[in-house]
Amino acid sequence: MSIREQVINTAMMAHSAAPEAARLTMGQKETILNQIAEKMWDERSFLQSENARDIEKARSKGLSLPMIDRLTLSDNVLAQTINGLKEIASFPDPVGEITRMWVRPNGMRVGKMRIPLGVIGMIYESRPNVTADAAALCLKAGNACILRGGSEAYDSNVAIAEIFRTVLEDNGINPNAVSLLPTTEREAILHLVKLEDLVDLIIPRGGEDLIRFVSENSRIPVVKHYKGVCHLYVDKDVDFSMAVSLAVNAKAQRPGVCNSLETLLIHSSITDEFLPKVSRALQEAGVALRGCERARKIVNGMTPASEDDWYAEYSALILAVKIVDSIDDAIRHIAKYGSLHTDAIVTKDYSASQKFLREVNSSTVIVNASTRMSDGYVFGLGAEIGISTTKIHAYGPMGVEDLTTTKFIVLGDGQIRE
Amino acid sequence: MSIREQVINTAMMAHSAAPEAARLTMGQKETILNQIAEKMWDERSFLQSENARDIEKARSKGLSLPMIDRLTLSDNVLAQTINGLKEIASFPDPVGEITRMWVRPNGMRVGKMRIPLGVIGMIYESRPNVTADAAALCLKAGNACILRGGSEAYDSNVAIAEIFRTVLEDNGINPNAVSLLPTTEREAILHLVKLEDLVDLIIPRGGEDLIRFVSENSRIPVVKHYKGVCHLYVDKDVDFSMAVSLAVNAKAQRPGVCNSLETLLIHSSITDEFLPKVSRALQEAGVALRGCERARKIVNGMTPASEDDWYAEYSALILAVKIVDSIDDAIRHIAKYGSLHTDAIVTKDYSASQKFLREVNSSTVIVNASTRMSDGYVFGLGAEIGISTTKIHAYGPMGVEDLTTTKFIVLGDGQIRE
Repeated sequence: MSIREQVINTAMMAHSAAPEAARLTMGQKETILNQIAEKMWDERSFLQSENARDIEKARSKGLSLPMIDRLTLSDNVLAQTINGLKEIASFPDPVGEITRMWVRPNGMRVGKMRIPLGVIGMIYESRPNVTADAAALCLKAGNACILRGGSEAYDSNVAIAEIFRTVLEDNGINPNAVSLLPTTEREAILHLVKLEDLVDLIIPRGGEDLIRFVSENSRIPVVKHYKGVCHLYVDKDVDFSMAVSLAVNAKAQRPGVCNSLETLLIHSSITDEFLPKVSRALQEAGVALRGCERARKIVNGMTPASEDDWYAEYSALILAVKIVDSIDDAIRHIAKYGSLHTDAIVTKDYSASQKFLREVNSSTVIVNASTRMSDGYVFGLGAEIGISTTKIHAYGPMGVEDLTTTKFIVLGDGQIRE
Repeated sequence: MSIREQVINTAMMAHSAAPEAARLTMGQKETILNQIAEKMWDERSFLQSENARDIEKARSKGLSLPMIDRLTLSDNVLAQTINGLKEIASFPDPVGEITRMWVRPNGMRVGKMRIPLGVIGMIYESRPNVTADAAALCLKAGNACILRGGSEAYDSNVAIAEIFRTVLEDNGINPNAVSLLPTTEREAILHLVKLEDLVDLIIPRGGEDLIRFVSENSRIPVVKHYKGVCHLYVDKDVDFSMAVSLAVNAKAQRPGVCNSLETLLIHSSITDEFLPKVSRALQEAGVALRGCERARKIVNGMTPASEDDWYAEYSALILAVKIVDSIDDAIRHIAKYGSLHTDAIVTKDYSASQKFLREVNSSTVIVNASTRMSDGYVFGLGAEIGISTTKIHAYGPMGVEDLTTTKFIVLGDGQIRE
């Protein structure tokens, strides 16, 4: 079979399994997910020996230590993954929920009922535990999924998918509800994203290159985010210690992730007093600062920020600092350089907080909390399948609910159109 | 300027106007839309003389009389359009609505606030009044729009857009919030749908060819429906007169539209008694029947239905009739041949009604009402910008709300990530 035929074949099988996945009751899904969690622990020596082959190949290819670390299914990673599965098992079931219902003048009741999307294509990189998370979230929302992980984790991904498929089969469910692309060729992605009649949604997770590649070639809707250039704007009327704490937490608590801070905007009326304080705290946390000219006049030894710095997602302990003369300037800066991910204001002023909430249209807009709070778990969505910075379908952190849609339901007693 | 440059230019101007459109208050939008409605009536002789040029060209090209009829901005069509604008003006404003808000264990409040999508590209055919409807709905939801109507209505569309733009300008708003592509070349669509950084959503309305062309070429999310192959399933335990009334209304009240009935499915246990009754009523309404073999044995002179008939959207007074042995057979038939538009059951049986509601995943699923009820106005959405049969973003009739998205808002008092 050609790669194209293999992909079409997998997609057709997943598509046929989707109605069964959609009909699973909440109880069945809970049982199946808990059984998968248990089986993953029981079979950890199998999982780890398959994983060892991926690691061996990665070593012989000379992959970096952090890459190999991310690839490794240690007991610790497995235990976390299994806990995640049990948590997903215990969520409320989104499927069948009637989100609204209203009555029309002719007595007809109209409502919206949550249903699964159908088939979800997940395209991701490296970490094999994403295979388990993604498959579990898709199943919980009643969807079939087609998984395509990184080639370096292929054997681990096959082993994890096998556990899902075995448990599905043991419960009399079509195992193709969890399908893995049988090839790691990049070409396979190209074929998958053209199958608009078989796949309902594509979720790519990984580097900007992968996401652009998927998005430019897909005929299927894609929910994605390219990068997180998050801002914290420190308004003129502000609690200094809160502002310092939010800046340090947002930048330094975990600088490699997409909701960490990249640019600090400070109102010019407080700069003389505030900037030295926040700079000291950031530098103590190991953060290197790159400033606009005005900021550099106040703090000695700050590297100059270039135009590129305002667009940068450093993913490292580097922070760009800019002084602005008003909240409007801050909002304009965010609109121009931001990435629609997460932007925050710290302020004591009511009308500034409301203006920021209203006028910044990033997917998450925060008053007086760290940008690091922008996360599906922290928001209470239960789990996060990804973050969307495109406004269609879902915008911001996506939970299980975002893997569903709503259909209209009509309850009549004979109404006709006059 | 090349066609590509013209399109990019228009899109850039609409994109720049979008933040102004997003900031309009409910009161401003009401005023502007009412002023547009009044101006359209005041300037009807201008609109009609521009329209006359389109009609003249259409005549010289030999367009059919129904086509010319759809093109014509009669006093009656204008009055209806103006009423539509006034109705849209009076809707509640979706923008800024906080649809949910909850509290996290750390005291942080998390909510979802409705915001405009940004820039919407509308691609449609023939009827120039769609220009007014679409522009008004986009504006109401705080969006800028780029309109591309049929080439045969170009002068009429320019005239209508000009009225919108003049009123916007009179109110100090950037008129590019309502933009029309300055060319009618089909190539322009190709360029428009590639501008993913400037346009947030594409809504094509028209024939299946146009919609496929848009959908296959677009890098921007597309909300669409190809066709409406709607079913009515007459269950075994049924009020015959209601079933007959629903079948006749769904098929014959307005056969040319997408929510009219195309296939009637009848439970085999009632066929002998019910089929003659419904056939007579349908034939009296001028409907030609095409039946499966079993149906043809009961009703004389029914044309045989071929496999193609089950897929057909007749848009005419023709109806396919099939006898099925169970509700499961009916659901399977709908899943195989349906178009995810609107499907209905008529039944007195509680569990049949619930099974149908649960297992048919069309965008509208109806119990005991005509498929013709599947409509934004009838559902109380206020107006309808289109119908989506793709499950992403919106599914079913789309109202003003579906031209918005929600962002997460967070109200904290200093929360950081531990």
